[in-house]
Amino acid sequence: MNDGSSSRIAAGLRKWIATAVPGARLPSTRELVAQYGASPVTVQNALRTLTVQGLIETHPGVGTFIRAVRTARPADYGWQTAALRSPRTRIQSVSTALRSTPNDVIALHAGYPDRELLPGRLIRSALTRAARADAALTRPPAAGLPELQSWFADELGAVTPAGVTPPTPSDVIILPGSQSGLSSVFRALAGTGQPLLMESPTYWGAILAAQQAGVLVVPVPTGPAGPDPDELARAFRETAARLFYAQPNYANPTGTQWPTALHGQVLEVVREHGAFLVEDDWAHDFGITSTPTPVAAHDDRGHVVYLRSLTKSVSPAIRVAAVIARGPARERILADRGAESMYVSSLLQTAALDIVTQPAWRTHLRGLHQQLGTRRDLLATALQEHAPRADIDHVPAGGLNLWVRLPDGTDVHQLAYDCEKAGLIIAPGTEWFPAEPTGPFVRLNYAGPNPAAFPAGARILGQALAHQPA
Amino acid sequence: MNDGSSSRIAAGLRKWIATAVPGARLPSTRELVAQYGASPVTVQNALRTLTVQGLIETHPGVGTFIRAVRTARPADYGWQTAALRSPRTRIQSVSTALRSTPNDVIALHAGYPDRELLPGRLIRSALTRAARADAALTRPPAAGLPELQSWFADELGAVTPAGVTPPTPSDVIILPGSQSGLSSVFRALAGTGQPLLMESPTYWGAILAAQQAGVLVVPVPTGPAGPDPDELARAFRETAARLFYAQPNYANPTGTQWPTALHGQVLEVVREHGAFLVEDDWAHDFGITSTPTPVAAHDDRGHVVYLRSLTKSVSPAIRVAAVIARGPARERILADRGAESMYVSSLLQTAALDIVTQPAWRTHLRGLHQQLGTRRDLLATALQEHAPRADIDHVPAGGLNLWVRLPDGTDVHQLAYDCEKAGLIIAPGTEWFPAEPTGPFVRLNYAGPNPAAFPAGARILGQALAHQPA
Repeated sequence: MNDGSSSRIAAGLRKWIATAVPGARLPSTRELVAQYGASPVTVQNALRTLTVQGLIETHPGVGTFIRAVRTARPADYGWQTAALRSPRTRIQSVSTALRSTPNDVIALHAGYPDRELLPGRLIRSALTRAARADAALTRPPAAGLPELQSWFADELGAVTPAGVTPPTPSDVIILPGSQSGLSSVFRALAGTGQPLLMESPTYWGAILAAQQAGVLVVPVPTGPAGPDPDELARAFRETAARLFYAQPNYANPTGTQWPTALHGQVLEVVREHGAFLVEDDWAHDFGITSTPTPVAAHDDRGHVVYLRSLTKSVSPAIRVAAVIARGPARERILADRGAESMYVSSLLQTAALDIVTQPAWRTHLRGLHQQLGTRRDLLATALQEHAPRADIDHVPAGGLNLWVRLPDGTDVHQLAYDCEKAGLIIAPGTEWFPAEPTGPFVRLNYAGPNPAAFPAGARILGQALAHQPA
Repeated sequence: MNDGSSSRIAAGLRKWIATAVPGARLPSTRELVAQYGASPVTVQNALRTLTVQGLIETHPGVGTFIRAVRTARPADYGWQTAALRSPRTRIQSVSTALRSTPNDVIALHAGYPDRELLPGRLIRSALTRAARADAALTRPPAAGLPELQSWFADELGAVTPAGVTPPTPSDVIILPGSQSGLSSVFRALAGTGQPLLMESPTYWGAILAAQQAGVLVVPVPTGPAGPDPDELARAFRETAARLFYAQPNYANPTGTQWPTALHGQVLEVVREHGAFLVEDDWAHDFGITSTPTPVAAHDDRGHVVYLRSLTKSVSPAIRVAAVIARGPARERILADRGAESMYVSSLLQTAALDIVTQPAWRTHLRGLHQQLGTRRDLLATALQEHAPRADIDHVPAGGLNLWVRLPDGTDVHQLAYDCEKAGLIIAPGTEWFPAEPTGPFVRLNYAGPNPAAFPAGARILGQALAHQPA
């Protein structure tokens, strides 16, 4: 028995094993004897070594195979640190609003309405119809299905005053959700290193998209009456920005709806500075005691880039939104969308159009507005009763959230931690500020699951506040 | 009758009309009389003026309304030219491969397989099931549905040799199509101004994504045997690039499949330079006479970023793909995806998983491979017979395309124009070169509609070539 020869065979087989697939069968002992010019005993010794090393296993009467069980090596990706360097912009981690909810907690943190507020039957029947249609197998034009473009153009056109030219279907670009629209608009109309004015506080997803686009965020303070036009004009002058991102209707997180007079004032400032207003009409379907009128309805000179999403009001599974823009701006945005994702699933577009053109959609929206009102009032009342130190900035006329100011000195992250231990998830307000928060806030979503638990949730918040060192 | 007063009323009403909605009813004559302190005749005169100007219309016995017919003004968006400046990178217009096809032409230009090559019944039944499932109303985790992550990880794991640690489900990020993956990978792992090595010719969508990301494209020549590893090493040295984009299996457009030995050689070069190989396995389901083995199967040190799409083989309406990456690179890509689109529709993810886990999917793929082979041979034979001056570089072992070299001096754009006039759409090869084309090429897709027309299409191409001035 030649030991050297046995280890030579083992080494040869190890090499072969390293490139073969687990479960592959080894050559028979007879073949190995021939291949290596060794005795059967030497071959058997080599196989025994490999068996002990966990690389192969023998099934008597069947054969010898590479073991499927793999030995996990500790991974070392250190080389990537050099290859990747520091990121150009450090994108913050995912927001509290995207956290999924365990079953046994009270959830006031979410960014989406509960599924019981969605038009479930409409969605399922529209999707079933779309599954049978051409839409299941075809590719739509890059800017979207023409019928859906028309629907979005008509919706805005219907509230456009007589003296203003309404948008045409070709001004509309269909998006796979409005987050994609924010990314494209910030990239295409501002770009790396360019300034972007944003209301503050504002939607965390917009802050995230701005970070990704590498733009320079310039916060413009907003309150229950919206941003101050003089402050806005000053920000435009100081920064030479060409872009202002805002949510004139039921802003997330504050719930603010701009007074009608402010629409014209902001448009005037934007026009004077040869700039764009990026109007995020995310809550268009969530009016409670007022109706949202887009600022975009008053502009036909391409100053307003209008974002309208169906994701939150229809279903998170039907990610369809639109951006309405005119002139070269629209071309820039479309080119960016083309490079980013080429087109939006025709199945989702067809289902979305089906849903919003059903008479039952109007009925659903009326019921939704009522339910949102009931839920809003229930949460506001519960807070007044059980958490009197939580101050509701103002009760919003629409949207999904209460924006709540806490006593000065409150540590909101400690508070969120204390609440969670007691079974309540809330979203610290810090995530909605592009710079330092101006005070301790939390955002409470009244559109989440199980409104019957709102009083219990308010009680937890009240107790947690009472135990704050402040 | 005081004319001055009449025009004052008209001016007041014009102002109101400019902000009101078309179809809105004007106050009654009696109300206007009271409001303006004028006589009924003066009010009537004012209304007549506005009627003549086309702003209002009176329906006798009903009332006076703002006219719904709008006078379109010629739009002037000139101010945007100053606001937008020149684009940072000029993104090229949409590729020929995305053009839709009129009914009565022979189409060899498309980038997608014809719908008769898709698993129609599987798709429709999976979508119908998904429409009834939770997936129709819920939001999935940012990285994707865990079951679908597992499927992608298992697929690659099944061909990973025994000595290599296979990917885990958490290495997988689900994408809304692989175009989005290319954009994110180029942005996250290279970024503005950084070099990116690419095979040349290569997929036009990857060139587009690179332009959008603002990276510096460095072409590395490839041929029927794939890229030369020495040339690749030289490009890494000269540019200090950290990223090489390639399609080792059935490259688009050339159809090249790298020889097995090249896998290890390229990996070696990539490792030596502390770099990433971005492996676009777009044609994984389109093998004809060979099986595609990903280079990624041989890497467990995070050097290969692996892109695998289901869009082309399942359905363009089910835009689902995955990127498999390990280490910090995976975190960078996930952060970019979060900022870009947050998540992929759970409906599409659920349907995709349903389809690829049906036994009928395997059966479909076997039939598809046969059909692709038949179509490939039919087109190749037709070209040899009817367009002998069109030289098929090499008959590919998989994929959807023939890459055809034309006689030197051929004007491919003139040729494409001549063919289109005669009823044949072809894609000029220029779109697949990140720099100047190295010769006159066209890409002919044999997976498009109506293969019975291939001989007629080849005849048109042959005649157009015969009439070229060369």
